[in-house]
Amino acid sequence: MANEIGNTAEGMNKARVESFSDGVFAFAITLLVLSIPIPDIKSADDQLLTTALLRAIPQLIPYVTSFATIGIIWLNHHSMFHEVEKVEHMTLTLNLLLLLVVAFIPYPTGVIGRYGALRSAVVLYGATFSAGGLAFSALWFDIRRNRLSREREDDARIRSITVRNSIGPVIYPLATALAFIAPKTSLGIFFGLAAFYFLPHLQPRRNEGP
Amino acid sequence: MANEIGNTAEGMNKARVESFSDGVFAFAITLLVLSIPIPDIKSADDQLLTTALLRAIPQLIPYVTSFATIGIIWLNHHSMFHEVEKVEHMTLTLNLLLLLVVAFIPYPTGVIGRYGALRSAVVLYGATFSAGGLAFSALWFDIRRNRLSREREDDARIRSITVRNSIGPVIYPLATALAFIAPKTSLGIFFGLAAFYFLPHLQPRRNEGP
Amino acid sequence: MANEIGNTAEGMNKARVESFSDGVFAFAITLLVLSIPIPDIKSADDQLLTTALLRAIPQLIPYVTSFATIGIIWLNHHSMFHEVEKVEHMTLTLNLLLLLVVAFIPYPTGVIGRYGALRSAVVLYGATFSAGGLAFSALWFDIRRNRLSREREDDARIRSITVRNSIGPVIYPLATALAFIAPKTSLGIFFGLAAFYFLPHLQPRRNEGP
Amino acid sequence: MANEIGNTAEGMNKARVESFSDGVFAFAITLLVLSIPIPDIKSADDQLLTTALLRAIPQLIPYVTSFATIGIIWLNHHSMFHEVEKVEHMTLTLNLLLLLVVAFIPYPTGVIGRYGALRSAVVLYGATFSAGGLAFSALWFDIRRNRLSREREDDARIRSITVRNSIGPVIYPLATALAFIAPKTSLGIFFGLAAFYFLPHLQPRRNEGP
Repeated sequence: MANEIGNTAEGMNKARVESFSDGVFAFAITLLVLSIPIPDIKSADDQLLTTALLRAIPQLIPYVTSFATIGIIWLNHHSMFHEVEKVEHMTLTLNLLLLLVVAFIPYPTGVIGRYGALRSAVVLYGATFSAGGLAFSALWFDIRRNRLSREREDDARIRSITVRNSIGPVIYPLATALAFIAPKTSLGIFFGLAAFYFLPHLQPRRNEGP
Repeated sequence: MANEIGNTAEGMNKARVESFSDGVFAFAITLLVLSIPIPDIKSADDQLLTTALLRAIPQLIPYVTSFATIGIIWLNHHSMFHEVEKVEHMTLTLNLLLLLVVAFIPYPTGVIGRYGALRSAVVLYGATFSAGGLAFSALWFDIRRNRLSREREDDARIRSITVRNSIGPVIYPLATALAFIAPKTSLGIFFGLAAFYFLPHLQPRRNEGP
Repeated sequence: MANEIGNTAEGMNKARVESFSDGVFAFAITLLVLSIPIPDIKSADDQLLTTALLRAIPQLIPYVTSFATIGIIWLNHHSMFHEVEKVEHMTLTLNLLLLLVVAFIPYPTGVIGRYGALRSAVVLYGATFSAGGLAFSALWFDIRRNRLSREREDDARIRSITVRNSIGPVIYPLATALAFIAPKTSLGIFFGLAAFYFLPHLQPRRNEGP
Repeated sequence: MANEIGNTAEGMNKARVESFSDGVFAFAITLLVLSIPIPDIKSADDQLLTTALLRAIPQLIPYVTSFATIGIIWLNHHSMFHEVEKVEHMTLTLNLLLLLVVAFIPYPTGVIGRYGALRSAVVLYGATFSAGGLAFSALWFDIRRNRLSREREDDARIRSITVRNSIGPVIYPLATALAFIAPKTSLGIFFGLAAFYFLPHLQPRRNEGP
């Protein structure tokens, strides 16, 4: 059993990987606030600041969208790691890849925060989410494969997680493609997808979500 | 039992939600320091820097106020989660909403830090605290409702938490309204409310506070 | 027993206070890196950048000093909390006060990082450390008082912690006063105090340190 | 047994040191995103932003390299701490030294992010990694020495960790020296070393890696 990190003597256990990942999720979600630029006005004048702050309201959309999306990834990460028994080297690598994308999210959020929903900004934003969806799926594919080596067949829960984890890698690239012709609509879709997940009455019976 | 995330096999347990929330509280409270602007003087001259630093002292008021307020939310969050048995989907959603507001606090704190207690800056600051009070109350309402489905009646402790959790959503919007005519007084009230909570001799017998 | 938060049903337990405090310590210590300004040169020219980076080397002194000082506070915080049985309201308040000072440390570190060891910058730096020393002592005084209500008399360990915790509140204000006439020497003393603590051969037999 | 912090009554236990270190690793890795500068263009114009973002793509190389390197240090830190029984004062000091270097990594990453792979920027970057390698080795040397005082002889696992922990302190300074004549090649080597570690098929049987 080369490459096992999991429960081997010198290795990494599941709880530490989860808690390190949680740290990155919590920090990335909090760091998002720096992506909302403080208005740059010439003098400390209330009239100017009022106008500037009102004009900044749409900049809350990417902030809230990124916040909710990282929140969803965090929730689903837990569902997924519930199926992990041993943390293999490949699982660690793919998990770090997912964290790399999550930790990067404040950057495209900041680009939209600064320049608004320009085409290139939303394409970058969507490409980041698409990369996140792919990394998430690759991680799930790996975890599921390790699980199959133990249990032979997927049960209903595993199949249902697999179905739901395929939604992101399909819809995110499509919404990103849309950003080339209609960036604001595309951003609206990213916002809508995140909001949809949190609406309780639309919620599927199990919670591994989009 | 649709929508349960709580103790179900693939779900999220209470300890993880608390530790993730604690992470966001700890990061947001530490990130506040970036809201105090380092003086921008023309040359590295001690006279200029002394003047600039002395002039920056009032900027410590929103820093300390936000710090103490996040501290209070953190304390009360624990009291509140003590009553949670299963983390339902709605609880998670409302908790993320509260964290969204908490993680946003460095932004209005930074606006006041940069432009001083201008009317629009304090209104934004108060609106953020009011949103936090509302999110906190909604979360408590949901937790209490889940608890009632188990225990039929509120006991004295629960009623006392309910009373105290109603203080914020009432006083914060009032102080925010006041900011339209007297922003500095309004900021003083936010500061006073936070300080009041920490004064030991004024403390109510139980600590679920304002 | 009004005002107890400690082990009461709705309250805050010691482990959570410690883990929240650890979060603030870890985050503040990492955030210090933002206090070292990236050189602002006109063009991406290696010669210019070399000069600018070499000139920035003294800016590492306040970075390392603040890092080591927060590290020491973290270490001593643990020794101190080992003596806590119940987390009373006053203990929580004083702990948050200490965290407020610790979370503020990146600010004076950034002021020195930007303008060098100017008198006003080092005075601010020293005043922050002095406030930290005072907050630490007040917290220890409170913890010791709660302990005395249980055990009547201080044992040797407690007395030794008390002696060591008095070093900071004495030396830090003195070094701060010195900053008015010799800021660079004063900064050197803050650096020396932090370094001294980590030198193993100078270490006192118990580790509650300066 | 002077200088023991480990398991003594007033001391620091291993779990806290690990969790504090994990906090610093998680924050430093997430803070790296601030090292990628948001393009500074004159107006919110899509054409300008597209060009600026495309030109920023190479700036992802130091981001990914630093991310992966901190990830590797985190992984190896766990392997190493597995061998710790008591946390001695020296171990704490060397661990804080390693954390100091890790927390500093966003700075040289930011310098390259802003000015590109200039010679002085890559030399600083490599010097930081070399310092990290040295701190890591010194920490391992100390942990191994404490272990030897208990067990007399190294077993195969310990020897294999020792061999692998010597790779960094050798290759990093060499790659840093190369930066003086070929900074881009040098940066490529730092990237390659990090990538190499994560390639599963090249992975050594045990995972204490470079």
